[in-house]
Amino acid sequence: MDWAVILAGGSGVRFWPLSSPTHPKQLLPLAGAKSLAEETFERLAGFIPPSRTLVVTGSAIAAPLISRLGLDPVNVLVEPRAASTGPALVWATCEALRRDPSASVLALHADWAIGDTAAFASTAEAALFAARNHDRLITVGIVPSRPETGYGYIVPGSPLDDTVRMVARFAEKPDAKTALNLMAEGALWNSGLFAWTATRLLAEIREHTPEIAPHLIRLAEGDVAGFFAAVGAVSIDVGLLERSQRVAVVPGHFDWDDVGTWEALTRVRSRDQRGNVVVGPVALRGTTDCIAWSDGTPIVLVDLRDVIVVVANGRVLVVKREQAADLKRILDDLPPEIRNLPV
Amino acid sequence: MDWAVILAGGSGVRFWPLSSPTHPKQLLPLAGAKSLAEETFERLAGFIPPSRTLVVTGSAIAAPLISRLGLDPVNVLVEPRAASTGPALVWATCEALRRDPSASVLALHADWAIGDTAAFASTAEAALFAARNHDRLITVGIVPSRPETGYGYIVPGSPLDDTVRMVARFAEKPDAKTALNLMAEGALWNSGLFAWTATRLLAEIREHTPEIAPHLIRLAEGDVAGFFAAVGAVSIDVGLLERSQRVAVVPGHFDWDDVGTWEALTRVRSRDQRGNVVVGPVALRGTTDCIAWSDGTPIVLVDLRDVIVVVANGRVLVVKREQAADLKRILDDLPPEIRNLPV
Repeated sequence: MDWAVILAGGSGVRFWPLSSPTHPKQLLPLAGAKSLAEETFERLAGFIPPSRTLVVTGSAIAAPLISRLGLDPVNVLVEPRAASTGPALVWATCEALRRDPSASVLALHADWAIGDTAAFASTAEAALFAARNHDRLITVGIVPSRPETGYGYIVPGSPLDDTVRMVARFAEKPDAKTALNLMAEGALWNSGLFAWTATRLLAEIREHTPEIAPHLIRLAEGDVAGFFAAVGAVSIDVGLLERSQRVAVVPGHFDWDDVGTWEALTRVRSRDQRGNVVVGPVALRGTTDCIAWSDGTPIVLVDLRDVIVVVANGRVLVVKREQAADLKRILDDLPPEIRNLPV
Repeated sequence: MDWAVILAGGSGVRFWPLSSPTHPKQLLPLAGAKSLAEETFERLAGFIPPSRTLVVTGSAIAAPLISRLGLDPVNVLVEPRAASTGPALVWATCEALRRDPSASVLALHADWAIGDTAAFASTAEAALFAARNHDRLITVGIVPSRPETGYGYIVPGSPLDDTVRMVARFAEKPDAKTALNLMAEGALWNSGLFAWTATRLLAEIREHTPEIAPHLIRLAEGDVAGFFAAVGAVSIDVGLLERSQRVAVVPGHFDWDDVGTWEALTRVRSRDQRGNVVVGPVALRGTTDCIAWSDGTPIVLVDLRDVIVVVANGRVLVVKREQAADLKRILDDLPPEIRNLPV
């Protein structure tokens, strides 16, 4: 049967001061009235039931995830340590296999904004079908809407059928010129939405991923802590998908955003006529292409352009839009008494 | 004897959201650790004792002024209504005269920033001496440091002695070109720092100020409310100084600022090497020529230029510096639930 594995980790840095280690972005209503995680669950529930949806997360946010989303704790897998996506997805896939010897897995993240729920569902089902039908590891490649330099790309190769093509190669986050070239040659964004049968994933891991393969025995023995202590922290992309010859791609024709920085709000939320995105009690005068977020304190912006203003958790951030992607580096450099949010 | 009359009214709009009707700018520590009013009192106390210092103010701020500055309530004159500077100064001058038939009055405001206390004191004493010696209404004209368009100017005329000249004319707030011409011809800023003998002021009012003169009898009868109900709201400049032929000017060689807008903080406070003025817990990264004021909430500014950020009284204001002088107009246009500060 089809299972879903939702990765819901995250350190909560990129949306400071709204996000925090205990309230990372998937728990925030960044794209609408509900949190990204709630939206993710509702989007899935139409075709994979909650009883077959596993969530992999860290200890800091397992409790709020369970309570806010009404999850069955037996379906929440708490990682002993963050070790990138490879070990997390392997563990969850083994867990699905343990419960269901015929498990196929749809792997996704809890913190995406998706424009078209129906298109997402039909693409996900096509990916799951292709994973079984072709016995391949299936990636979903999003048709790019812009030459984004913040995403990796998938270059499709020879077709397996009308919708599925082999992956010719993966391209790392490109520079601007390379991004344009990738778009021109029909490359797709590597979304992180994957599908595989549990048996095929484990076979490929054994063949290609020495960082993980020798330690699978620990999972078989139920020693999750031992598995995480032993594995190398490797992403599923680098550790497997870029190494395996059995990787194919299904195109996704829906708006997909990983909501990676404050800047993303201009894509996933509606803008006013002057290009501003506003959440909370905010008054704008003569202001253009700004983002303002308040968790309650009224904000007044006058005669600004391309500025992000965030008032949350007892902190105020005012940053020029071009610098918002560098927030992590900026925070690293701040005195702890400013960076650390009140509990 | 010498008396001081301090005008301490003000609606508390220009430093929103830090200022409010009950905490207008003279009660705020805008230029240093102490409030402007405290600094004003300490500056005066060196040459005019508190027992001969009268304060004219409104009912909203009389109590905080008395308690914070340790004033004798008998020296605090609470106006029944704000009626510009003419009636306020006439009332206070009459009150000084009632207590001291030989009273001379130094008139000033509670909300100035003064750079050089010793120069201020010697100029004030020179103005009081000139008021008695020449029996004139004495204005203090500040030697301009820039072609400011926000101040009125005094053009000096024929000399009365080495330091005192008659006033040739007053010039209203000029445009930029006119301001340059005024500076070139030796015009001085009209500071609002004045000196006169009580008897001369009242004689000139009787001759030139029909908005006030017919109602002086009310003050003589002790009917302050009746006086304020009857007078026209007229400034001492328009109602008397621009009409009288007995007005002279003493030059003031000290930094003087009426701290009229947030912008003024760049003149009355020290700037960092990139031209920023910061008060409170503020972290700056790549930021130039900005003003940031926090009453406690930490602020982080990244990659900004010429922006004012104020976090106070449960409100956040972010405004481009060029617009800060228009704050009153901007506030008039805001919804009350944002404009009105929590009590």
